[in-house]
Amino acid sequence: SEPSRPNVVTEIPGPKSKELLKELNQIQNSAAVEFFCDYDKSQGNYLVDVDGNVLLDLYTQISSLPLGYNHPSMIQALSKPENMSAFINRPALGVFPPADWVTRLQNSLLSVAPPGLNNVQTMACGACSVEHGLKAIFIKYMRDKRGGSPPTPEDLNSCVINQEPGSPPLTILSFDNSFHGRTMGALACTHSKWLHKLDFPVPDWPYVRFPNLKYPLEDFVNENKAEENKVLEEVEDKIEEYNKRGTPVAGIITEPIQSEGGDNFASPEFFQGLRDLTNKRGMGYLMDEVQTGCGATGKFWCHEHFNMTDSPDIVTFSKKMLTGGFYNKESFKPIEGYRIFNTWVGDPSKIALLEEVIQVIQKENLLDNVKVTGDYLLTGLKNMQTKYPGLLSKARGLGTFCAIDFKDVESRTKVMKTMRDKGIHTGACGVSTLRFRPTLLINNQHVDIFMDVFDSTLSSV
Amino acid sequence: SEPSRPNVVTEIPGPKSKELLKELNQIQNSAAVEFFCDYDKSQGNYLVDVDGNVLLDLYTQISSLPLGYNHPSMIQALSKPENMSAFINRPALGVFPPADWVTRLQNSLLSVAPPGLNNVQTMACGACSVEHGLKAIFIKYMRDKRGGSPPTPEDLNSCVINQEPGSPPLTILSFDNSFHGRTMGALACTHSKWLHKLDFPVPDWPYVRFPNLKYPLEDFVNENKAEENKVLEEVEDKIEEYNKRGTPVAGIITEPIQSEGGDNFASPEFFQGLRDLTNKRGMGYLMDEVQTGCGATGKFWCHEHFNMTDSPDIVTFSKKMLTGGFYNKESFKPIEGYRIFNTWVGDPSKIALLEEVIQVIQKENLLDNVKVTGDYLLTGLKNMQTKYPGLLSKARGLGTFCAIDFKDVESRTKVMKTMRDKGIHTGACGVSTLRFRPTLLINNQHVDIFMDVFDSTLSSV
Ligand code: FES
Repeated sequence: SEPSRPNVVTEIPGPKSKELLKELNQIQNSAAVEFFCDYDKSQGNYLVDVDGNVLLDLYTQISSLPLGYNHPSMIQALSKPENMSAFINRPALGVFPPADWVTRLQNSLLSVAPPGLNNVQTMACGACSVEHGLKAIFIKYMRDKRGGSPPTPEDLNSCVINQEPGSPPLTILSFDNSFHGRTMGALACTHSKWLHKLDFPVPDWPYVRFPNLKYPLEDFVNENKAEENKVLEEVEDKIEEYNKRGTPVAGIITEPIQSEGGDNFASPEFFQGLRDLTNKRGMGYLMDEVQTGCGATGKFWCHEHFNMTDSPDIVTFSKKMLTGGFYNKESFKPIEGYRIFNTWVGDPSKIALLEEVIQVIQKENLLDNVKVTGDYLLTGLKNMQTKYPGLLSKARGLGTFCAIDFKDVESRTKVMKTMRDKGIHTGACGVSTLRFRPTLLINNQHVDIFMDVFDSTLSSV
Repeated sequence: SEPSRPNVVTEIPGPKSKELLKELNQIQNSAAVEFFCDYDKSQGNYLVDVDGNVLLDLYTQISSLPLGYNHPSMIQALSKPENMSAFINRPALGVFPPADWVTRLQNSLLSVAPPGLNNVQTMACGACSVEHGLKAIFIKYMRDKRGGSPPTPEDLNSCVINQEPGSPPLTILSFDNSFHGRTMGALACTHSKWLHKLDFPVPDWPYVRFPNLKYPLEDFVNENKAEENKVLEEVEDKIEEYNKRGTPVAGIITEPIQSEGGDNFASPEFFQGLRDLTNKRGMGYLMDEVQTGCGATGKFWCHEHFNMTDSPDIVTFSKKMLTGGFYNKESFKPIEGYRIFNTWVGDPSKIALLEEVIQVIQKENLLDNVKVTGDYLLTGLKNMQTKYPGLLSKARGLGTFCAIDFKDVESRTKVMKTMRDKGIHTGACGVSTLRFRPTLLINNQHVDIFMDVFDSTLSSV
């Protein structure tokens, strides 16, 4: 069972991690490696490293472990005889699906489909989920443009050699500080850090600044509304500009909370505004829930908080969902086969695990748990912000998807390092933001353990 | 154990497959689905469908099952206690690798590294392997161009908004009929079918026709050499053209045998020519072994047949390797961390399975088996081509990676359908090509079973 508290016995990375790092460095660039882990010994919310340090994990493999380490339901999923074949005979799902594939999709992905979206396509990671979600938008856009006529021979021939009209110069509008993935199409919509982008050719697609809101949001409703309306106008202008240029904007992509870019929020009205203007213009709207999905905000999908009058056309997922993929409206289903396709299009073994995750979420009311713990965490963060006003600002969050800003990157780095030495493992995002990405099982006691260390660390900086 | 022969009891797809297909169609476009499979009952080289039909599988999930269905070593891998954690705690490998990660990489990927390549980076599918392999080429190209200077502030700022100089208009040269994947960067290098490409914006990157060789290759050595030399000249011209345009060609990407595009071969001298000219010009050379790797040609990597004086800079893999990824030369290792990166960068559970695959290949001398069976298969195909000269041509192959052309797409479709009704499951590629992509365990008895059905089918067309 889960340890009762963190326990740090060496510096981190410790001697064993350092030794392994030296070896890994012979094989590949390992500059991003923080330490090596003992996943056999890790349990629940606690990550154990190879030097025996026991850390309360509030980062969970970049927000990708819904139930923490070695959850009994995952162990069970692995040993169920009916799952064996999914783990060892990975099929080409788009051509030769397994007998239980429809049932499994119904038990897992479809049972938690966002309102208004009844189609689902599996993929394998966040990047291909976004790339193929964008493809569904391009396909729909050109189908509408052809007005029901089939593609011409010229369309079919020119696309093979990357030329118009078959390969049209369509674009996707994205926002500053967004992160959607690292393959070329996803990367073209990504505007977070230079490390993601430098040296790579990507198309010149339109981007607009993301609303720069004042926190706490409830104290700046009018200012924030004005700011968001200004951005919505800039979006319209940018679309006009690219349309006039001959590079029509086929769709818009947003995260419901900009995650890698610094946990930037916008209001439900802003997202509704994007939905309205994409509908008005016959454009697609992709909501990228790769990091926000699977319950972390207290609803299964973050954009459910927005109560939009019409759902996004595409909702992408990965990370805590264990499988990649996207939901789409019926109207965004391609007509021909093989258009949204690759060898594997997903992995049934990940669906077998996801089935268990969803059952646990439902049986144990984990969305309620996330709400309760999230409120407690956010209240604590706000208290800390009041106690250390020069150092901390903008405590914010939905569910346990919380964040707080430091006055500069140095203080954030120092606090994170000091906390890690005391057994609290956290993650960074944006310029100087500390982000919280715990499991769905985190409770108030875990928050207490964190908050004690946070407080004592802040008081010493 | 494996069935001794095919057994067809219903039409294919049978009633159960049709019923399931109707259901799946409610959820997603399923036009590419051929039939549903009972993977629990499938064994070795035999695929069993949901209607109880037993098919000799010469296509193996689009060439992605090295040891066939439910191989004992895979079952064992799944039940080994030391593997459990790899299956249920998928880590962010680039930041928090498991304790045994280096050992596992050494036991699996590094133990079969192509000559000259001692670095390896895991990925999750063919597309991201190619995308990140190309990124390694772009990074190296710009590093060389900067001549050791660090990127400027202008580089760092401009790349985030998709602008020069940080996001330079670099290009990659690829060949007609190539297939490298379906995310935007990989798709820009892909020129096979319109179904892969229509409606999608991709950059205008250079492409050159692939040598159009005459078969059998050994009878047309001089003609083929002349053709290949002409293509090599066209490659040089195309590079000059794009360089002059201000869109410098940073690298070349090839498959060692063009697989989706029709099993098109070129000679070792051709690939050596590409290696020489990329070296001469300071360009990168990516050999995409996603479909050809892992032993199917009788050597572990197809390009080993070419005995090149200097290896390609990047070799990508996926499919039968179970994990995606690429090997690279030390000089193509990025200097900064987080450049070649994503949340998961692979999946240790796939490495655990791959370890077993490689052990079986070595213990059971499967590369020898592939050579022996491949020779026998190719001899048989050549006999059929002699027997049915108006219908068949260009029997060709390396190991069991064999193919034969039909006079037209209709006759190919008809023969494949008729053979499937007799229990032989094959795949198509190119315009009118039948391709063979069996497991590494296929033997002469399997070939006999196929060849009998092939002969009787051809005689009836
Ligand atoms: S691009 Fe998603 S798994 Fe390869």
